[in-house]
Amino acid sequence: MSPNTAFLNHTFIDAAQASVLITDLSIQRGYGIFDFFKTVNGKPVFLDDHLERFYNSAKKMHLHVNQTPAELKDIITELMRRNNLPDSGIKMTLTGGYSTDAYTLPATPNLIITQLPLTVPQGFQTGGTSLVTYPYQRQLSEMKTLDYSMAIWLQPFIKENNADDVLYQYDGLIKETPRANLFMVTAKGEVITPKNNILSGVIRKNILNLKNSGFRLIERDFSLEELYNASEAFITSTTKNILPVLKVDGKEIGDGQAGEITRQIFNLLLEKIK
Amino acid sequence: MSPNTAFLNHTFIDAAQASVLITDLSIQRGYGIFDFFKTVNGKPVFLDDHLERFYNSAKKMHLHVNQTPAELKDIITELMRRNNLPDSGIKMTLTGGYSTDAYTLPATPNLIITQLPLTVPQGFQTGGTSLVTYPYQRQLSEMKTLDYSMAIWLQPFIKENNADDVLYQYDGLIKETPRANLFMVTAKGEVITPKNNILSGVIRKNILNLKNSGFRLIERDFSLEELYNASEAFITSTTKNILPVLKVDGKEIGDGQAGEITRQIFNLLLEKIK
Repeated sequence: MSPNTAFLNHTFIDAAQASVLITDLSIQRGYGIFDFFKTVNGKPVFLDDHLERFYNSAKKMHLHVNQTPAELKDIITELMRRNNLPDSGIKMTLTGGYSTDAYTLPATPNLIITQLPLTVPQGFQTGGTSLVTYPYQRQLSEMKTLDYSMAIWLQPFIKENNADDVLYQYDGLIKETPRANLFMVTAKGEVITPKNNILSGVIRKNILNLKNSGFRLIERDFSLEELYNASEAFITSTTKNILPVLKVDGKEIGDGQAGEITRQIFNLLLEKIK
Repeated sequence: MSPNTAFLNHTFIDAAQASVLITDLSIQRGYGIFDFFKTVNGKPVFLDDHLERFYNSAKKMHLHVNQTPAELKDIITELMRRNNLPDSGIKMTLTGGYSTDAYTLPATPNLIITQLPLTVPQGFQTGGTSLVTYPYQRQLSEMKTLDYSMAIWLQPFIKENNADDVLYQYDGLIKETPRANLFMVTAKGEVITPKNNILSGVIRKNILNLKNSGFRLIERDFSLEELYNASEAFITSTTKNILPVLKVDGKEIGDGQAGEITRQIFNLLLEKIK
C-alpha cells in the first residue's frame, strides 16, 4: 500500500506522520470545526455546499481560514491526484490552533486535510438501521464543530439498547443523530425533517431542494410521538446518502420495512450524485 | 530560559516539541479529559483531590489511565525536579486517543503532563471581578472534559458586555463560570454554592469542608434573582483561590465591594494552602 498523503497548513505530508503540537486549542479545549465530503469515481460530491458550510462554521466560531475557496479546491485537487483514491472521504479540519495561553482568542488555526478510502453503497439499503433516542440538544448546533463528546460517551448506551446509533431529542422534539439528519414520512405522504437547532446537512439540503419529487418536503419540528407513528423514516448523511430507519426505541416504524417513498427519494438523490 | 519539559505517555520530552498525531480523538472529536493543580513553593496543592477527580473523569468518559495514582505522583515529582518551577500549574490531559476509525471506542488515550509558571496572588483580591450571565448547561458536567467550546465561543460576547468572564445559568438557575465555581453570601450570612449539574471544583470542595468557619456552608441551587440580591459573591478556582464578584450583568452585588465574609473564608482557605 502506498503511503497516504495529507495536507497540513501549507504542505503535503505523509498522513501517518501528521501531528499538531499539544498546545493546539483542539487538544486543550476541544475547539475547532471541520467538514467532510465524498468523492465518487474521482469526482467530489456537493463540494461547493461543503466549502460554503466550512467557511460559515469557521466564521461563526471566530476562526480564520487563510486560504480562499478557490485555493482550497486546488489543494483538494492536488491531494486527490497524489492519493489516487477515486472513492474516498475528504475531511477538512480547522483546529482552534495556537493561542497565547491555550484559551484566549485570537488563535492561529491549523488546517488539516485528509483523504481516506470510502465506498458509499450505491444500492438502496433495505437492511436499514435501528435508533435509540436520548435527550440532548447539541451546543452551537448550526456550526459543524469538533464536539462529539456526547456521541462518543453514549457508545456503551447504544450497545446496551441494541441500537446502531443514537437519535437526539430535546424537550420532546426530534433533533438529529450525531452524524446524520432524520426525515419521517407521514401517513399523508408528507416528508418532514426537523427545522431548528440542528446541523444543516448537505444531503438534507439537497433532498429539500429536489424538484419534481412529487412529495411535500417540509422543514418543521416534530415530536417523538409523531416519529413513532410515522409510516416511514430515514437518515441522511454524506457517508450513508439515505438509510431507512426501521426501529426507534425498539418500536417498528411503519411496518418495520424500508419504505417505498424513502426508496423513491433515494433514487432521485442518486441522480444528483452520479 | 531553559527548555521546558513535558511528559508524553512514557517519556519526558521538550514541551515545545510535544505533539500528537492528527488521528487523536481530541483533534478529531474534541474528546478527552484533564485536571489541573498548582504548586506553591514547590509543593502540589490538593494533589490527592485532583488525582481522584482525574481518575473519576477518565473512568466516566470510558478512558483508561495506564498509570496508577502512585506512578503519576512519581512522574509529577520528576517533572517538577526537571523544570524547577516552584510556583506552577501542572496540567494532566488524557486525550480520547487513537481509535480505529477516529470515532469508535475503545481508543488508546495519550497522556500529556505539562508544567508552566503560575503565581496565584497570595493576598485578598479586593479588585474582584465582573461577570455576565449566559443561558447554558455544560454537557457531561460532572466530568472535567476538554470541552470549552462555549467558553471560547463566548469570548467576544464577554468583551461586548464589558465583563471579565461569563457565568452560566440555565432555566434561571445559577451554574458556574467556565473555569470556576460560584458562591453567594445571603443577608442572613449563609454561604451558598450551586449543587447540581456543575463541575465539583477542588477549591469549592475544600471550602465546603472548612471546619469552624463560623458560617453556614450550603450546597443548593439558586436563581439569578437571588444572586442579584446577595450581599456578597465570589468565585473559586485553582488559579484564583477566591476572587470577589463585584458585578453580575452590570448590577452591583451588595455594595459592589469585596465582602467581609468572603475575606474571612479566603483567610481560612489560605491556611490550608500554605
